[in-house]
Amino acid sequence: MAEKLKIISLGGLNEVGKNLTVYEYGENIMIVDCGLGFPDGEMYGVDVVIPDVTYLNQNVDKIKGIVLTHGHEDHIGAVPYILKTVTAPIYATPLTAALVKMKLEEHQLEDIAEIREFGPGSKMKIGCFEVEAIHVNHSIACAVALAIKTPLGVVIHTGDYKIDTTPVGCEMTDLTRFGQYGREGVLALLSDSTNAERKGFSPSESTVGDALDSVFEGCDKRIIITTFASNVYRVQQIITVASRYGRKVAITGRSMENIVNASIELGYLQVPDNTLVDINKLKNYPKNEMCIITTGSQGETMSALYRMAFSGHKQVEIGSGDRVILSSSTVPGNEMTVNRIVNELFRRGAEVLYREAKPDLHVSGHGYQEEMKMILALTQPRFFIPVHGEQKHLRAHAELAKATGVPAKNIVISDVGKVIELTKKTVKLNGSVPSGRVLVDGTGIGDVGSVVLRDRKHLAEDGMMVVVMSLSREDNSLISGPDIITRGFVYVKESEELIDDMRMMVMDTLDACENNNITDWATIKTTIKTSLTSYLRKTTKRTPMILPVIQEI
Amino acid sequence: MAEKLKIISLGGLNEVGKNLTVYEYGENIMIVDCGLGFPDGEMYGVDVVIPDVTYLNQNVDKIKGIVLTHGHEDHIGAVPYILKTVTAPIYATPLTAALVKMKLEEHQLEDIAEIREFGPGSKMKIGCFEVEAIHVNHSIACAVALAIKTPLGVVIHTGDYKIDTTPVGCEMTDLTRFGQYGREGVLALLSDSTNAERKGFSPSESTVGDALDSVFEGCDKRIIITTFASNVYRVQQIITVASRYGRKVAITGRSMENIVNASIELGYLQVPDNTLVDINKLKNYPKNEMCIITTGSQGETMSALYRMAFSGHKQVEIGSGDRVILSSSTVPGNEMTVNRIVNELFRRGAEVLYREAKPDLHVSGHGYQEEMKMILALTQPRFFIPVHGEQKHLRAHAELAKATGVPAKNIVISDVGKVIELTKKTVKLNGSVPSGRVLVDGTGIGDVGSVVLRDRKHLAEDGMMVVVMSLSREDNSLISGPDIITRGFVYVKESEELIDDMRMMVMDTLDACENNNITDWATIKTTIKTSLTSYLRKTTKRTPMILPVIQEI
Repeated sequence: MAEKLKIISLGGLNEVGKNLTVYEYGENIMIVDCGLGFPDGEMYGVDVVIPDVTYLNQNVDKIKGIVLTHGHEDHIGAVPYILKTVTAPIYATPLTAALVKMKLEEHQLEDIAEIREFGPGSKMKIGCFEVEAIHVNHSIACAVALAIKTPLGVVIHTGDYKIDTTPVGCEMTDLTRFGQYGREGVLALLSDSTNAERKGFSPSESTVGDALDSVFEGCDKRIIITTFASNVYRVQQIITVASRYGRKVAITGRSMENIVNASIELGYLQVPDNTLVDINKLKNYPKNEMCIITTGSQGETMSALYRMAFSGHKQVEIGSGDRVILSSSTVPGNEMTVNRIVNELFRRGAEVLYREAKPDLHVSGHGYQEEMKMILALTQPRFFIPVHGEQKHLRAHAELAKATGVPAKNIVISDVGKVIELTKKTVKLNGSVPSGRVLVDGTGIGDVGSVVLRDRKHLAEDGMMVVVMSLSREDNSLISGPDIITRGFVYVKESEELIDDMRMMVMDTLDACENNNITDWATIKTTIKTSLTSYLRKTTKRTPMILPVIQEI
Repeated sequence: MAEKLKIISLGGLNEVGKNLTVYEYGENIMIVDCGLGFPDGEMYGVDVVIPDVTYLNQNVDKIKGIVLTHGHEDHIGAVPYILKTVTAPIYATPLTAALVKMKLEEHQLEDIAEIREFGPGSKMKIGCFEVEAIHVNHSIACAVALAIKTPLGVVIHTGDYKIDTTPVGCEMTDLTRFGQYGREGVLALLSDSTNAERKGFSPSESTVGDALDSVFEGCDKRIIITTFASNVYRVQQIITVASRYGRKVAITGRSMENIVNASIELGYLQVPDNTLVDINKLKNYPKNEMCIITTGSQGETMSALYRMAFSGHKQVEIGSGDRVILSSSTVPGNEMTVNRIVNELFRRGAEVLYREAKPDLHVSGHGYQEEMKMILALTQPRFFIPVHGEQKHLRAHAELAKATGVPAKNIVISDVGKVIELTKKTVKLNGSVPSGRVLVDGTGIGDVGSVVLRDRKHLAEDGMMVVVMSLSREDNSLISGPDIITRGFVYVKESEELIDDMRMMVMDTLDACENNNITDWATIKTTIKTSLTSYLRKTTKRTPMILPVIQEI
C-alpha cells in the first residue's frame, strides 16, 4: 500500500490564531507555522493560548523542520513553547528570523534553536519534502507562501497574503510562480480564509500613503500615530510622509522600537537622514515638526498610546495641540478597549482620526474574495482546503472555490486535530489526533484547565464566601467560629446583618446535624453549603462560591 | 434674578445606554426617559446598570412627571427602579406604555405607577412645562420627539430618531412640526448622536423588505429569522413577506412573544389570517412553508436561537434543511457571542445569512449625518446640546452643528451629572449633581461597588487561596492546620508539591513570627500573605488572592 500524505491542522481552523499545520508522509513530518492565539472573554486570567502539540511530542523523531511563513504572533508566537519538546531546525525569512530570535531571547532559549534563513524563491529540502518559498504581499515584510513538493504532488500553502498591485517596499505577490505550479499540476491548495466574507479586491497598501499625506498636509499640530508594530510597510509610509513634511519622527513602545530597529538593520525600512530622533529630544522641536509613532492601536492598557492618553507616559501627554491618527483596524474582541481610548483622546481635546471616521487610513493585509479566487484560478488545485478562519470564513471560502470550478467533493473543511488523508486521486478525513488549546498563565503552561476556568468564572460573577469553624475531634462540638469571610460578593461593611444571619444559619445547621447523628465532616460541609446557597439565592438572587472549612481540634 | 432652566443628564452622555435627562425650572422637574445600560467587560457578574438618581431623590417633591420617548430598554429599563423612590405620573405612547406595564408586572409594581398615555401631536402640561409629542421614525413603533415649552423658550428633545422617507407602518418623521418650531424660535436642541460618525443618509426600513423578499423567494428550506424583538416594523415586514410566499409564521422567545402580542393588540402589527401558528403545530407543515421568528440576534446564551443552535430548544433543532437569517446588527460588545452562534449554525450545515455577508438585511434606527444636519437646519436652535453617545459621537455631532451654522460657543458637550444652565441668551455648565452608575446584581441594587468589583476582577484573573489555621489563644502555638484551599488558581491534583511547599512556608512563617515575638494576629496574617505572594510570583508569575484565616482556640 502506497503511503498517504497527511495534513493536520493543530490550530487555525474554526478559530482565529494559533496557526500550526502538520505535513506528514511516512517517517517525515514538516511543521508549517507555530502561532499563538489570544484568550477569549471566557478565559479569565489567561495570557496566551498555544496549540496542544501532544501529537508532535509523540512523533518527535519524525519532525524534520519548522517552516515559518511570516513573523506575526499567530504564526510564530508558540515557537518558544514547542521548542521545549521538539528539536528541529526552524526555516524563516530574515525579518521573521529576527522576530523569532527576539522571542527566544525573551524566553532565554536563544541557544536551543537552529534558525536557517531563506529568501523568496529559495528551495529547501526538509525530509522528503521539497519546499519553495513564493513571495506574497501581507501586512508585514518577508511573507511567503510555500510550494511543497511531496511524493504525491505539489501542495500550495499560501500563508497570509493579499495581492497588491502597487505594494510598498516590495513587489506584487508572485502570481507567475503560482501560475506555473498550476500549469504543472497542484494536488492541493491550503489558502487563507480571513476575508472570505469581503467582496471585491482589497485596497492597496499604497492607498494608505495617500490618506496619510492628506492628514499631514498643512497640519500645524503635533502628530501622534499608531499602527500595528509589525506592519513595517505602514511604518515606512508614515516615516516617508513625515519626512516629506519636514517632521522629526520618534518611536515609542517596546515592540515598535524592536521591530523598527530590526527592520532598519535588515534594510526593510529606509529612513531619510536626520529624521529619527530620540523621544526625549523631541521637545526641542516645535509641535508642527513632530511625529510620534507609537504602539497602542488596540487600546492595550500597557501600551504607549494608552499611557499618553491617561497621563502615564513619561515624555508625552496628549492634549488639544495633538492630532492623533489610528492607522489600524480593530481586532475583533478589542472594540471596547479601542473605543475607550478614542473617547479619552477626544475628551482631552485632541483631534482624533480613526477608522470609523476616516476608513482610508488602514487597509487589510488579507486578500478579499477576488484575490482568493485568483489564487484558486492560478493554481487550479485538485483538492481545496480552506484554512485560517472561523467556520463562517471556511464555508465562504469553499463557496468561492466552487465558483472557480473546484468540485464540491474535492473541498475539505477540516477542524483542529482532524487528519486529512490525501492520495494522488483522493482526499478524505480519516480520524483525528490529540489537539486543542493549551492555556498559558504566568509561567504555567496547561495547568489552567476547564476546572480552574470554571471556578474563575464562578468567582468572577458571584464572588465567594469562606465559612471556617473548628470542631472537636471527640464530639464534633463547635470550638471556634463559624467565621465568615467574603470577597467579591457584597460590601461587607454594609451587609453585617446578612453575615450575622448566615453565621446563625451555620450554627443551626451544625445543631441539626448533631440531632440527626450526622458526624461525617464531608456531609456536614455539604449541608452547610446547601443551606447557605438556598438562603442566598432566595434573599439576594446570587450564588457565590461557598467554601466550608472545618479544622479538627 | 430670573430663574434659569437647568438641563442635567443622569445618563446617556459619554456612554451607551441609561438615558435619563432632567429638565428643571424653579420648583419643577420633568424627567425625560429612564433607561438602563448593560455592564461592560469589567463589571463582572453585574446584570444591568442604572443611573444614580440621588439627585432626584433629593428633589422628589419637585418631580412633576416622567416622559418616555419610546420603549427601548435604554430609555425605559430603569423605570421600575426609579419608582422605588420617585412618585410621579409616567407619560408614554401606547406601545411604550404596554412595554412599561409588562416591566412593572415583572417587578410586581403594577399598582404603584400611574401611566398616562398620549399619541403624537398630543400636548401635555407637566408642571411649568408644556410638552408636545412629535412623531419620529425609529426602530420601534410609537417613538416621539418632544417639544418642551419652558418659561425661557422651546427646547427640542429628539429622542432616538431617523428620517425615513418610505417608512413601514407609519408616516415619515414629522419634519414640518420641527420646522414650525424652528420658525417660531428654538432655544435649545438636544439631539441623538448615535450615528454621528456615519456619512450620508440612513437607508429606509423598507429596503429591508426588498432584501427579505429576495431571500424568501424560491427558498425550499425552513426559514428561521431573528431580529430585535422590539423592532415591530421589522417583524411586520417578515410576516408580510412570509405570508406572500405562503409560509406559516411561528414566534418563539419570551420577549418576541410578548412584544408581538402587545403590538397585535394595539394594532401596530397587521397579521394576515391563518398566518400565525403555534410553534408546536409547525411540524404539521412542510419545511418550505415554515417561518420561525425568534429572539437571539445578539447570540445571547439563553435566547431561543441559541438553544436551537446548541440543541437546547424544545421544538426546533437547526440543521442542513434551514436557512437562518440574522436581520439585525451586532451591538458593540456582542461581537464574540454573535460570531459564536453564526459559526455554530454553519457547522450544523445551515445556510446562514448575516450582516457581514448580506448587509442589506438590516438598517439602523438612528439617522446618519445628513439627517442630523436636517434636524439642526429645521429647528435652527440657539443652543445645541448633543446627547446619546460616547465622547466621539458627541464631538462629531458638534462638528455637524457647526456646519449648519451654530456658533461653537453655543454648543455644549456636557457629561453625566453636569448642570447645563440656560437663560434666554446664555448657556453654561455650572456645577454638578451626584450621578454615576448603580450596578444591579440579582436583587441587590448598588451593593456591588468598586471594592466588590475589584475583588471579582482579582478572583477572575488569578483565583484565590485560603490558608486556615487554629492557634492557641495562650501562646499562639499551632493547634490545627495550616490547611490550604485554592479555587481558580491551579488544578490542585496536579499541584500537590506546590501546595505542600506553601504549607511548609506558612509553618516557617509562624515560627519566624514566634522567634521575633510577633504575636499580633493581623501582623501574622500579613506576614503569611506577603511571603506566599512573593513565593508564588517567583515560581508561577501569578498572584492569587490570598486569605489567611486564624481560628482562636
